[in-house]
Amino acid sequence: MRVSQTNLAGDLLLNLEKQGAGPLHERVKRALRLAIREGRVEVGTVLPPSRQLAADLGCSRWAVTEAYGQLVAEGYLEARSGSATRVRWSNAPDTDVARPSARQAPAARFDLAPGLPDLRAFPRRRWADAVRAQVTQAEFTELGYPPAGGHLRLRRLLAEYLGRSRGVSTTAQDVTVCTSVTDGVRRMCHILRAQGITAVGCEEPGWTRLRQVIHAAGLEPVPIRMDHGGLRIDDLAGRPGLRAVLTAPAHQFPLGTVLVPERRAALLDWARGVDGVVLEDDYDAEFRYDRRPVAAVQGMDPSRVVLFKSLSKTLSPALGIGWVVAPPRWTRQLHQTDQVVAQPSTVDQLAFAALLESGTYDRHLRACRQRYRQRRDTLVQALADQLPGAPISGIAAGLHLILELPATVDTAAVVAAAAARSLRVADLAAYHATDARAAHGLVLGYGNLADSGLQEAVRHLRGAIEGSS
Amino acid sequence: MRVSQTNLAGDLLLNLEKQGAGPLHERVKRALRLAIREGRVEVGTVLPPSRQLAADLGCSRWAVTEAYGQLVAEGYLEARSGSATRVRWSNAPDTDVARPSARQAPAARFDLAPGLPDLRAFPRRRWADAVRAQVTQAEFTELGYPPAGGHLRLRRLLAEYLGRSRGVSTTAQDVTVCTSVTDGVRRMCHILRAQGITAVGCEEPGWTRLRQVIHAAGLEPVPIRMDHGGLRIDDLAGRPGLRAVLTAPAHQFPLGTVLVPERRAALLDWARGVDGVVLEDDYDAEFRYDRRPVAAVQGMDPSRVVLFKSLSKTLSPALGIGWVVAPPRWTRQLHQTDQVVAQPSTVDQLAFAALLESGTYDRHLRACRQRYRQRRDTLVQALADQLPGAPISGIAAGLHLILELPATVDTAAVVAAAAARSLRVADLAAYHATDARAAHGLVLGYGNLADSGLQEAVRHLRGAIEGSS
Repeated sequence: MRVSQTNLAGDLLLNLEKQGAGPLHERVKRALRLAIREGRVEVGTVLPPSRQLAADLGCSRWAVTEAYGQLVAEGYLEARSGSATRVRWSNAPDTDVARPSARQAPAARFDLAPGLPDLRAFPRRRWADAVRAQVTQAEFTELGYPPAGGHLRLRRLLAEYLGRSRGVSTTAQDVTVCTSVTDGVRRMCHILRAQGITAVGCEEPGWTRLRQVIHAAGLEPVPIRMDHGGLRIDDLAGRPGLRAVLTAPAHQFPLGTVLVPERRAALLDWARGVDGVVLEDDYDAEFRYDRRPVAAVQGMDPSRVVLFKSLSKTLSPALGIGWVVAPPRWTRQLHQTDQVVAQPSTVDQLAFAALLESGTYDRHLRACRQRYRQRRDTLVQALADQLPGAPISGIAAGLHLILELPATVDTAAVVAAAAARSLRVADLAAYHATDARAAHGLVLGYGNLADSGLQEAVRHLRGAIEGSS
Repeated sequence: MRVSQTNLAGDLLLNLEKQGAGPLHERVKRALRLAIREGRVEVGTVLPPSRQLAADLGCSRWAVTEAYGQLVAEGYLEARSGSATRVRWSNAPDTDVARPSARQAPAARFDLAPGLPDLRAFPRRRWADAVRAQVTQAEFTELGYPPAGGHLRLRRLLAEYLGRSRGVSTTAQDVTVCTSVTDGVRRMCHILRAQGITAVGCEEPGWTRLRQVIHAAGLEPVPIRMDHGGLRIDDLAGRPGLRAVLTAPAHQFPLGTVLVPERRAALLDWARGVDGVVLEDDYDAEFRYDRRPVAAVQGMDPSRVVLFKSLSKTLSPALGIGWVVAPPRWTRQLHQTDQVVAQPSTVDQLAFAALLESGTYDRHLRACRQRYRQRRDTLVQALADQLPGAPISGIAAGLHLILELPATVDTAAVVAAAAARSLRVADLAAYHATDARAAHGLVLGYGNLADSGLQEAVRHLRGAIEGSS
C-alpha cells in the first residue's frame, strides 16, 4: 500500500516497534527508510513538517529532525532551504553498516565527511606494476588457496614495518592478514566470547560500525566516556566485570583525541588487573602532524593488546587489506576460526608486500602526511576565517577534525542544509550510542576533499550553519 | 644484564647500529625502548641528563631530548618538571605460550587431491593487463568503499554471462558479489535462520566445509542420501519440517553424479510444497565433457533457488571472488547483513568484469574444458591400465572422479601410503558426516596435476593400493 503524507505517521508507528532497541530517532529513521525502500512512500513525496510528525508519533521534534537529517545525508531525502523535505531516492543502500564514506548516495560535490583518504592520490601505476610483477613471478602453487593467516612474505614485511614505524613488538607468525579492521575485530570478538568474555568497552562517541560488529558477535558494547585526554580509564575501571576494551589511542574517532601518556600506562594496568585485553584500533595513526606519531600501545605490552589496522585510510578501502597483531596464544584461532570468511587475494597481498619492501609504501605515506597536514592547515584557516571563534579540536593527527557548534544550532538541520548544497558533513551525534544531545558539532573529514574545493566547501558550510541557527 | 644509568650509553651504542636506517633520534628512541622492554633498564631507573647522554653517544642533545620526549608520549618514560626523567614502564614478555606451527605440509610431487583447477593455466598476463587497465581507468570514487553487493558493472556482466552459459534467470541487481561459495552460503544461512529455518539438508557425502559453515551459522546440517541419480528427493521429502537443502546438481562433490532430469523437477516441487529454498552449489558446472553443461536449476524457478559460484574452480581460489544469485526478496539482506565481512577488491572486481566483457573468460573456460577432458581421458585410461577392473564413476563433468576400492583395502592406509610416495589423494570416507563405512574409495582430482606426471602418479597409486591390501 502506498503511504501519503497524511498516513505516514500511521505507517511509521506500525513499524517503529520492529526497529528493535536503540534511540528513538534511530528507530524513526529506520522505519522511514524502510517505508521509502519498500516503495510505500514514493519518490517526490513531501514529508510532513517535523513538528507535525513529532506530534503524531508522540516523540520530540528533535528525534524527527535528526531522522530527517540522517536520511538527507544518506541520500533518501532532500531538504532545500525554505521548502519542505522530500523523498529523493528509493534504492540507496543501508549506511548503518559502514563508516559514513561507505555511502552510495549520489556523490556530493564537496566531500567533508570523514572516513576516506585522498582517493585521487592512490598510486595507480605502482599498484599495477606491483600486481604485474607479482602475478608473473608467483609460484603456481601460490595461486591455490591462500595460506591461513595470509602470505608469510607479507606477514614478515608487516612485522618489520610495524616494528619500525609503530613500535609494535611481534613476529611474522603473529601477524594475521585479514580484510579490514572490522573483519579483525569480528574474528577477535568471537574468540573472546568463546573465552567467557561477554562485553567490550567502547569509546563513547565512537565508530558505530565496530559497535555493531561487537554486538553481532554476541558481545555487549559498553559505552566508556571520553574527555580531552582520551578514553577515561576511571570510567573503564568503574565497570566491574568488564575485561575488554576497544580504543583508538593514537587518534580517536570521532573526537580526534590522543590518549595522554599516563593513561596509556593506566590502560595496561587496568588490563592486567582484570586479566583483560585491549583492542587497539590503529586506523589512521600514520598521520600525526606536529611531531612523530606516538607508538602503538601494543608495543608496551604485546601480551595484553591486539592491534588492528588496514589500508583503508592509507591507500584505499577498495583493496580490502587489513591485519591483526595478536598475542601468540590467539594467533591460531585468528587464522582458523569458523569466522574466517575471506582473505585478500594472494596476488594483492604479494603486491602490497612488494610496495612495503621497495619503500614505495613509506614514500606514499610521507607524501600523504605532508598533503594532509597542508590541507588541515588550510581547512582550519578557512574555518577560522568563515566561522570566527568556532571551536575546533582533534587536529593533531588523522584525517578529520571536530567543529563544535553553538547549542542554538540544530546540527541535524546543518547536515541536511549542507547536503542540499551538495556538501557532505557528518553530525557528531551520529557516533553516540547513548545520549547524543550532549554532542553538538560536526565531524569534518579532509582526506578526500580536493584542495581546490576547500574554500568553497567551507563557504557552503557557513551558509548551512547560518541557515539553521 | 641490567643496565644502570652509568652504562646505559654503552648499551645504547651497542644497539644503535641494529636500529636500521632513519634519523639518529629515531634510532636512539628505538634502542632505548628496546633496552626498557627487554628489561635491561629497570622501572624507576633515573636516566642520565640529555646533555650527558648526548656527549656519551656523540650526538646532538636535541636527538636525545627528542627521543626522551617521544618515549614519554608513549608512556615508557616519565618526566616531571624540575626533576629527572625516569623509566616508568617495562614489559614482562609472555614466555610460556605454545607456538602454533607456521609450517605447512610439504607440497606433494603428485597432486591428485580434489579441489583445485589447473593453477599452471592461470592467465597471468591477461590478469595483469586487466588490473592495469582497470586501475588506470577507474574513477577515483571507485577507489572508495566498494558498493554493497559488488560493483554494478561486474554484476551486470555476471547476470548476462550466467544467463547465457548457465540458463540463470536474474538481473544485475540480484547478483551479489562475495568472496567465495562458502561466504555466500554463510550469508544466506544467517538470513534463513532469521526467518525461522533451523536446518539445511546436505548431500551425504558432501563438501565438509559447507556443512561446517551451516553449523557455524546456527543451523543443523541434515544428511540426505545420494544415489547414482543424484540427491534422493524421496529422502528429502521424508524429513518433516525441513525447508532448505544444499545441493550441487550439475556435478556433485564428491560423488560426481549429475542430478537426473525428473529429480530436478521433483526438487523444485518439494521446495514449493514446503515453502522452502534450494541452495544450488554450481562450483564446477562449466566443465561438462560429453555434452553441453546442464543448465542451473535456478533458471527453472528463480524464486525458490539461490545459486552460489566462484572463480575458485575456474581461475584460481587465490583471487577470492564469488557470487550469489538470489530471489529479489533476499538481495538486500545478502548485501547488508551483519554477516558481510568482506568483498573482493574493487580493482579485482573490475579486472574480472573486463575479462568477462572481452570474452577472455569464455575462451579461458573453453581451453580449460578441452584440457581437462583430455586429462580425464588419460587418467581413466591410466587407471584402467594399472588397476584393471577398478570401478570408476563421476567422470561426466568436473575436475575429479571416484575410484572405488575393494572392501578388503584399507582406504585410510592407501592415502597414507600414497602420501609416503609424495602423492596426494583423498579418502571418500572423509566427506561423510555419518556412517562412512559404506564409502570405500578415493576421490581423485585431476585439475591441478601436470599431464607429464599423470602416468607416474597412477603407478604410485597402484603401489600404494597394493601395499595396503
